[in-house]
Amino acid sequence: MESKDFKITRLGTPRIKSPLRRQDFVADGATVAYDTDAKVLTKYVTDNQEIPAFELAGPREKIFHDPAWSKAAILTAGGICPGLNDVIKFLTSTLIRHYKVPVVYGIPYGYRGLDPAYGLSPIMLTEEMTDDIHEQGGTILGSSRGGVDSEIIVDTLDRMGINLLFCIGGDGTSRGAHDISIAAAKRHLAISVICVPKTIDNDIAFIDKSFGFESAVSQAGFFITGAHAEAKGAYNGIGLVKVMGRDSGFIAAYSTLANSFVNYCLVPEVPFTLEGDGDRALLPNLEQRMAKKHHAVIMVAEGAGQDLFETGGDEVRDASGNRLHKDIGLLLKDRINQYFKKRNIEINVKYFDLSYTIRSVTAHGADAVFCAMLAQNAVHAAMAGRTDMVIGHWGDNFTHVPIALATGQRKKIELTSPLWSSVKSTTCF
Amino acid sequence: MESKDFKITRLGTPRIKSPLRRQDFVADGATVAYDTDAKVLTKYVTDNQEIPAFELAGPREKIFHDPAWSKAAILTAGGICPGLNDVIKFLTSTLIRHYKVPVVYGIPYGYRGLDPAYGLSPIMLTEEMTDDIHEQGGTILGSSRGGVDSEIIVDTLDRMGINLLFCIGGDGTSRGAHDISIAAAKRHLAISVICVPKTIDNDIAFIDKSFGFESAVSQAGFFITGAHAEAKGAYNGIGLVKVMGRDSGFIAAYSTLANSFVNYCLVPEVPFTLEGDGDRALLPNLEQRMAKKHHAVIMVAEGAGQDLFETGGDEVRDASGNRLHKDIGLLLKDRINQYFKKRNIEINVKYFDLSYTIRSVTAHGADAVFCAMLAQNAVHAAMAGRTDMVIGHWGDNFTHVPIALATGQRKKIELTSPLWSSVKSTTCF
Amino acid sequence: MESKDFKITRLGTPRIKSPLRRQDFVADGATVAYDTDAKVLTKYVTDNQEIPAFELAGPREKIFHDPAWSKAAILTAGGICPGLNDVIKFLTSTLIRHYKVPVVYGIPYGYRGLDPAYGLSPIMLTEEMTDDIHEQGGTILGSSRGGVDSEIIVDTLDRMGINLLFCIGGDGTSRGAHDISIAAAKRHLAISVICVPKTIDNDIAFIDKSFGFESAVSQAGFFITGAHAEAKGAYNGIGLVKVMGRDSGFIAAYSTLANSFVNYCLVPEVPFTLEGDGDRALLPNLEQRMAKKHHAVIMVAEGAGQDLFETGGDEVRDASGNRLHKDIGLLLKDRINQYFKKRNIEINVKYFDLSYTIRSVTAHGADAVFCAMLAQNAVHAAMAGRTDMVIGHWGDNFTHVPIALATGQRKKIELTSPLWSSVKSTTCF
Amino acid sequence: MESKDFKITRLGTPRIKSPLRRQDFVADGATVAYDTDAKVLTKYVTDNQEIPAFELAGPREKIFHDPAWSKAAILTAGGICPGLNDVIKFLTSTLIRHYKVPVVYGIPYGYRGLDPAYGLSPIMLTEEMTDDIHEQGGTILGSSRGGVDSEIIVDTLDRMGINLLFCIGGDGTSRGAHDISIAAAKRHLAISVICVPKTIDNDIAFIDKSFGFESAVSQAGFFITGAHAEAKGAYNGIGLVKVMGRDSGFIAAYSTLANSFVNYCLVPEVPFTLEGDGDRALLPNLEQRMAKKHHAVIMVAEGAGQDLFETGGDEVRDASGNRLHKDIGLLLKDRINQYFKKRNIEINVKYFDLSYTIRSVTAHGADAVFCAMLAQNAVHAAMAGRTDMVIGHWGDNFTHVPIALATGQRKKIELTSPLWSSVKSTTCF
Repeated sequence: MESKDFKITRLGTPRIKSPLRRQDFVADGATVAYDTDAKVLTKYVTDNQEIPAFELAGPREKIFHDPAWSKAAILTAGGICPGLNDVIKFLTSTLIRHYKVPVVYGIPYGYRGLDPAYGLSPIMLTEEMTDDIHEQGGTILGSSRGGVDSEIIVDTLDRMGINLLFCIGGDGTSRGAHDISIAAAKRHLAISVICVPKTIDNDIAFIDKSFGFESAVSQAGFFITGAHAEAKGAYNGIGLVKVMGRDSGFIAAYSTLANSFVNYCLVPEVPFTLEGDGDRALLPNLEQRMAKKHHAVIMVAEGAGQDLFETGGDEVRDASGNRLHKDIGLLLKDRINQYFKKRNIEINVKYFDLSYTIRSVTAHGADAVFCAMLAQNAVHAAMAGRTDMVIGHWGDNFTHVPIALATGQRKKIELTSPLWSSVKSTTCF
Repeated sequence: MESKDFKITRLGTPRIKSPLRRQDFVADGATVAYDTDAKVLTKYVTDNQEIPAFELAGPREKIFHDPAWSKAAILTAGGICPGLNDVIKFLTSTLIRHYKVPVVYGIPYGYRGLDPAYGLSPIMLTEEMTDDIHEQGGTILGSSRGGVDSEIIVDTLDRMGINLLFCIGGDGTSRGAHDISIAAAKRHLAISVICVPKTIDNDIAFIDKSFGFESAVSQAGFFITGAHAEAKGAYNGIGLVKVMGRDSGFIAAYSTLANSFVNYCLVPEVPFTLEGDGDRALLPNLEQRMAKKHHAVIMVAEGAGQDLFETGGDEVRDASGNRLHKDIGLLLKDRINQYFKKRNIEINVKYFDLSYTIRSVTAHGADAVFCAMLAQNAVHAAMAGRTDMVIGHWGDNFTHVPIALATGQRKKIELTSPLWSSVKSTTCF
Repeated sequence: MESKDFKITRLGTPRIKSPLRRQDFVADGATVAYDTDAKVLTKYVTDNQEIPAFELAGPREKIFHDPAWSKAAILTAGGICPGLNDVIKFLTSTLIRHYKVPVVYGIPYGYRGLDPAYGLSPIMLTEEMTDDIHEQGGTILGSSRGGVDSEIIVDTLDRMGINLLFCIGGDGTSRGAHDISIAAAKRHLAISVICVPKTIDNDIAFIDKSFGFESAVSQAGFFITGAHAEAKGAYNGIGLVKVMGRDSGFIAAYSTLANSFVNYCLVPEVPFTLEGDGDRALLPNLEQRMAKKHHAVIMVAEGAGQDLFETGGDEVRDASGNRLHKDIGLLLKDRINQYFKKRNIEINVKYFDLSYTIRSVTAHGADAVFCAMLAQNAVHAAMAGRTDMVIGHWGDNFTHVPIALATGQRKKIELTSPLWSSVKSTTCF
Repeated sequence: MESKDFKITRLGTPRIKSPLRRQDFVADGATVAYDTDAKVLTKYVTDNQEIPAFELAGPREKIFHDPAWSKAAILTAGGICPGLNDVIKFLTSTLIRHYKVPVVYGIPYGYRGLDPAYGLSPIMLTEEMTDDIHEQGGTILGSSRGGVDSEIIVDTLDRMGINLLFCIGGDGTSRGAHDISIAAAKRHLAISVICVPKTIDNDIAFIDKSFGFESAVSQAGFFITGAHAEAKGAYNGIGLVKVMGRDSGFIAAYSTLANSFVNYCLVPEVPFTLEGDGDRALLPNLEQRMAKKHHAVIMVAEGAGQDLFETGGDEVRDASGNRLHKDIGLLLKDRINQYFKKRNIEINVKYFDLSYTIRSVTAHGADAVFCAMLAQNAVHAAMAGRTDMVIGHWGDNFTHVPIALATGQRKKIELTSPLWSSVKSTTCF
């Protein structure tokens, strides 16, 4: 952790009295230490080093932007995720009700909505129109992926007089926001660019939890119960469940642990082979289990086992003969069937692709509370003149995280972590 | 309806007093007319014809089998379906608690469990062990498909002394049950063979509703809301939802009508083309909708559009080069993408395959009540000495339906029915 | 069934060609026989009587009201119920999209919205604004109870030029609609007044199912599972569940049968005593069960056991000393506690009052389909010039039912019906 | 935080090699700092004080109890809570599968099951029988409240040879466990007594989250949506929702924030008056809202507003004339009705008492994962010879917390916390 930079960019000195109530203010200079072990923490001090720490999020007594002169814009980019509308709703209500910001634009279809070439008009967001949007999945603003010329966007922000930009999206979106904040700074435009990080995969570095993740995991549980019913209902039944998780298997791991019907949990972080006699040879292990128990549930993250496609070359094709996106779920389904067919063992594989189904639900319970508080802290950060940052969460606190730090690497399941130990302890290998 | 045979086979004259309470008995000879229109009904009588009618189900004052000497067996066959465990539970409790039948076997894995070649042991079912099985999806007995030599099965029934056989399954299962009842009759074995018809597709002739169907449709609604959120969340988003329905599109039609977010409902009964300028050319119509509304939800039954594969020959293959089951969902996904790509129109298709996910849930509410009453009536029919029949439902009554009648044809959506009119009225074509 | 009058009032001869597609039309004169038993039906004919039958609902080739000149109004009255918004939505879309009726008003807060004294403004309903209201419980129009001066209402209808009035509500609402249609007829105003009958209790005579009922029963199941968990979790635990059902116990009976954890089902139709040695003495029976099983679930409809309050006089009071509404749930809770305390037997009663919780949900699955088809048929009936009627359902068909017939009596659970037999067979008495 | 004692009691030196895999072991001496602010942490060191910290939970390389000679017992006490069965399941499987403990008893009905006077027999728990208990709410072991003579219990533990006792329960249960561990120590019995803290109210000091809480909050959201539908469906409708929370209002606060339909959130920590002209005078504020919006949702924790009963004396009585438990929900309902009646304003109050309904559900998603990991860490702690402690959670880590510390005070909502700020910002006062 030596060289990580936790420093947040500020647009200038906050001089305006916040309209919020006094007792809620966070002390300037409050932090959240990155480490938790007392010995490690002590050593920093005895070594005369600063304890590495995030800036604590929250409302400040003095703010930078004058609400009366402010205009805000909110956009969502990337795939949908539970809680997007909760975040939009609470950004809007905090800006309007608490800071009395007079104008809040909803930007349609992500960054595209800020590029005049697309001819998309912004929506005026009000408290009334966002009052019950948290009861819908997806995003009322629409989303899009990809390409953003930060100069064009800053042109638009400048022209529209927007000084508060909220970007809800993933890694790409955050990097775009970083470029925008740099470009704005070069033009001496005092625009706060704040990201609310979105990833159904829960894989943002330096942030311990991302919104929507828990609602998606809850939802997955429902299907795992179904896959288990299918597996037990047929002779030698196998329920094969694919979830999202391109680079990290948090959804798969949490879903496995939350629903102890899962017997195999395959994630990108942990290699496995199909055949062979290694510890993690899936099919021989599965064969043993079928002989004993006659049913099994397999959970696979979409990014798992990508090495298995190497040799297979172009055999995975779609209906039109185009190469498939290397769908590990379909590959597993085929290989399992071949393996047992060759051995003359009847099996019945039922395949459940949950990719979209668990991300289009609404956020609920504590996850919805998390969305609300992320949004409120994003507004506090913006009003206080912070920029080029994402709202994070560490331990039990909301934090300010520089975009460069959050996007510098991706969080993965550590194989020595309590999470993976727990997963291993409830599964077959 | 001239030549339909509604006559139920009876093993002999019921002479034993039923142990059930008097006020519940159904009059012998009570029926349920097939037709409902007063003019049609009147004409039968004035033409001196009998009004075609099912025998009414229910407990009889005199029963044929002596409960004290009876042994029952229950099996489930074919794909799983919501409510299987409800039916098993209520068969068991009605036999044991009400008729005091001392032995109720659960037969594992369908008809296989009655073939000694498979070496499967029956389970003794009790009220205790079936008390909360309705809270699980699938079937606690396990299921299997296919082949049954009725002579071997009758050997087993004879050897085990089973005089009450309950088969919960689809068309194939019912035809198997028919063969068993014929084979038993030839040997002068007084075995009541009663089917509880199972089809998630709701396509049994002469039966207006099959169990599990309503719970599956309820479940589908959840995903359609998700598909709609995906469709609206992306620029020109298209949610494509596949459900079961090999020969008839009842699930697709009901799901469409219950969730008016669906814009296209494709069923086996109604042909459509992909391109061209006909009334039911999907892609041009979709193109128009996307231009206007920028999102759409398409519902397709697995058996829809099978003619579209003809020309395509063997282009649909799985990862191993084997021909795919002509998956209309994947075909549509590809063709939609190609069509819009050719026209340089950005679209975003999200595909939801609900096949298994909506059939592995539990039955709930009125559907669970329906399961309970089907099971109770199946036991009443068996005890009264009926055989070679399925328990049906017509209008608001439970009925006895000869297996030959129920399996003689398949129920399909009639294009002039109120159901299809309603579907057409809420969709784009 | 001798003297029932099935005759529907018509405003005049339909002469206008319906804009709907030809193949959907229902033949004029098509009916749905009230009886189903072939012998009974035959006897009518041989006795030279007409077979009693409802008019079949559906679109007619010739309609009475000219859509281009029509104005429709929709109102909801009485307590909320699952599916109200589905009905509103499908009334609106059928009127606008299919019949091209140019003006559809939503009337706020029931009949009040038609009385100028309340100063309430109607809402213009469009397809867009009603597109996703089925995803909300309750009614977007608001509802109210009680008093309606039909002359004032007809004044308003006349002044506003409304010729199509749709009233979604219960018995009181229907009687109000009857008065309105009479009053309009006296003034020679050709106004079609059509009711969509709403009752969470499912107790409308001559109608076999009312909308929202099945969704409410599904929802109740969730809580019964919870009550069962509470009951088993405590030593001698008793889960006591109250549901709606003032005069008839259909919700209680269906919920019991759908969730076989219920051990006692108390409905208005079947008397029971608390103590004593009769067959239906609740507390002694419960004492026996507790001794054997140590847990129990009791389901009670709000209208059950009202005679138990007679002697108790005014002992049931609320926090302010006012008499309570004779809450059978609270009374049972107290009496159960007293009974076992006197006998020194520890018990733990947990009380669940589901009254509102199961009626504020949305309609789903087949119940939502039912709402859609009720609404469509209501519009067809209105356009065809029918009035003073409710849309009913009988067997498997939608019907036209005169208001006087539907409100003349209340449907109750018949104690010799298959439903009650089934309930008895799964409970302790 | 000066005088808090974080020191954990150990039975002796662990000398036995753990059977678990090497890479999962937690370093002995690893801790989790209580504070997070870098300045505060630095000051401890510069002041030459130890940084206050919890012992980190997890598997140790050396354990104290020899698994082969061990016998474990598991009990649940107090009210039910989502996740009890998850904890039981994972305690069982971790003991049996991972540590190879040969005997795991399930103790029926809490501490009672260890008192021979009650004549209750323990259940032998196995992996098979606990495999799917997480799909049921409540506790398979049964629970009870109250009184425990620790000497009698230690007699039983000694006689049965139990050296690992797991108590899942609340404050009272933990204090009982503390007494047991003291009594065992006095007799020189090496018994590890480990608590898994259970409180639906989430109010345990020094523990940031308790299991079941998040699932209960999720569930509450469902009803708040219903209360909102009721409130909007009636003229001047008011949905009044009561939840648990005797001393602290976390459920109320989280539910409010997760479902921004709530307009008033009343918790024990924050006084309010019914009338008057103060900032927190409920009824005048409500009157203003009704005039403007015509509907409102009020959320009240059971422990809120208890001072309002003082003056009322004994006016709150149940059906038998006994004093009611001072039900704030019923009191509010009455007072609201009186207030508006006096002012001749029509209102419609619908009361939802969620007390039991939200605690009898199953745990799901991340909450279920939390249960699994609590249980696993409880077993690790016990095997390592820790005793007289509860398994806690702090920041993002599982911790060991002395019982005395955890039960010394109760966690409450701090009025300056981000949580309460957020609640205030979304409600009317």
